[in-house]
Amino acid sequence: MTLNSGQLLYEGKAKKIFQLPGQPDCVLVEYKDSLTAFNAQKKGEFKAKGELNRNIATLIFKFLGQKGVKHHWVEDVGPRAMVCKQVSIVPLEVVVRNTLAGSTAKKFGIEEGRPLDAPLVEFYYKDDALADPFMSDDQALMMKTVKTRAELDELRRQALQINQGLIELFREIGINLIDFKIEFGRTAKGELLLADEITPDCCRLWDAKSGEKMDKDRFRRDLGNIEESYREVWTRLQKRWEKEL
Amino acid sequence: MTLNSGQLLYEGKAKKIFQLPGQPDCVLVEYKDSLTAFNAQKKGEFKAKGELNRNIATLIFKFLGQKGVKHHWVEDVGPRAMVCKQVSIVPLEVVVRNTLAGSTAKKFGIEEGRPLDAPLVEFYYKDDALADPFMSDDQALMMKTVKTRAELDELRRQALQINQGLIELFREIGINLIDFKIEFGRTAKGELLLADEITPDCCRLWDAKSGEKMDKDRFRRDLGNIEESYREVWTRLQKRWEKEL
Repeated sequence: MTLNSGQLLYEGKAKKIFQLPGQPDCVLVEYKDSLTAFNAQKKGEFKAKGELNRNIATLIFKFLGQKGVKHHWVEDVGPRAMVCKQVSIVPLEVVVRNTLAGSTAKKFGIEEGRPLDAPLVEFYYKDDALADPFMSDDQALMMKTVKTRAELDELRRQALQINQGLIELFREIGINLIDFKIEFGRTAKGELLLADEITPDCCRLWDAKSGEKMDKDRFRRDLGNIEESYREVWTRLQKRWEKEL
Repeated sequence: MTLNSGQLLYEGKAKKIFQLPGQPDCVLVEYKDSLTAFNAQKKGEFKAKGELNRNIATLIFKFLGQKGVKHHWVEDVGPRAMVCKQVSIVPLEVVVRNTLAGSTAKKFGIEEGRPLDAPLVEFYYKDDALADPFMSDDQALMMKTVKTRAELDELRRQALQINQGLIELFREIGINLIDFKIEFGRTAKGELLLADEITPDCCRLWDAKSGEKMDKDRFRRDLGNIEESYREVWTRLQKRWEKEL
C-alpha cells in the first residue's frame, strides 16, 4: 500500500483522512504534528507528535479490541498513518471523567483533582463554529446527533466500558486516567464503533506518583516538556506491550 | 394576619421571604417591584410590578392546583404578598421549552422561534456565583441537587405536567407559551412541590396573533412597554378567571 495514494477526504486539526483506492470500506488516517487547543485558537506543533500519537493510538485500539471494544483501526501504514474502517462520525464528543478537571470543574467552581464517586459521561455537540457546546441527553436527541435514545444509551455504555479498560491499562503503567474524549463512527451497515483516536491529545493523564501532567494540558497551560511527556506515555505503553508479547 | 410581621428570612432578586410567627410550616412571600436580568447585571423596576406578579402567580397556582399540580401557595395577603408552605428550595432551575429561544437557541446557533417536536426539559444549577450553569442529569446527580435519579425523573414529570396546563391556560388567553423556568421545594416531610413563582419574569410569552413579546425579554432587550405587557397578561388572565367563576 502506498501512503497518501488517495484523494484527501478531510483535514482536521490533528489528522488528515485519505481515500484508499480499491478499498471503499476503508480510509487512510494520517496523524499530523500539529497541536491545537481552545477550539484551535492556540496552535503549536512538534516534529515527532504525529508518529507518537499514531503509535499510542494503535496500542490502545489493540488493547481495547482485546477487551471486546469495537473500533475503527485496521492496520498501521508507515510511521504515522493507519488504515481505518470508513465511518461517518457521530457529531458527539463523548467525555468520560473519573476525576474532576477542566471545563466541568470550572463550571461548578470545584478545584481540579476531586475524584468522582462514579465515572461521569458527558456529551458535547461536535461543531467547531459553536465551540462544541455541552448538551444533555434530551438536547443531543433534539439535535438529532443519534437516531434514538437507545443509541445514546449504547454510546454511554461503550464509553464506560472503554473507561474501565483504559483505567486498567494506564494504572499498569503508573498513570492516573483523569478523563478523556472519544468519538464514535457509524459504518455503512449502521454499526456504532469507537473512531477518531485515544492519545494524550484527548486524555488527561497524571503520573500516579508525582501527579505531573503527561497530556495536552502541558500545551494548553504552557507547562513545557510537551514532547518528553508524550514520548514517556509511548515508552511506558510500549514496555508494557512488549512484556505481554 | 399582619404583613411583614416576622423576621426576614431571605431576600432574592424579585421576592422577600419572611417568617410567619405562630405558623412554623409557612412563610410570607412578598413580591418586589425590581426587575433584574443577566444574573442581576442589569437592574430595573416599575411600581406595579410586585402587585401584578403576585396576582398573576396566584391565578396560575390556583389553575395548576385544579389540574392536580402540588404547589406551595396557600393564600394571598395584602396587595403583593402571599402565604406559602415553607420549603427548602431544590438548587435546580428547571426550564421547559416548547419553542426554541434564549440561551439554548443561541448555544446551537438556531434562530429563535423554531417549534420543538416535543417539549424540552433542562436543568440548570441554581448558583448565582456560577451564573446558573446548564447541567445534564448525571451532573445534577453528581452535584447532589436531588437525592436520587428517581427524584430527578419525578421533577421532569411534574415540569411536563405543569407545561401541559400552562400551554392550555395561555392558549385560552391568546398567548403562545414559548418556555418557562420553575423551581421546586421540599417540605419538611420530604414532599417535592412547585415553589417560587410563575410570572412574566420567568416565562417567554408571545402574543398568539402579533407575536409580540409580553415578558421579561422586553426588559432584557430594551423593547419598552414592560409594565403595559405585564398588565396585559394580568388583565387577560383575570378576564378568563372571571368567566370561569
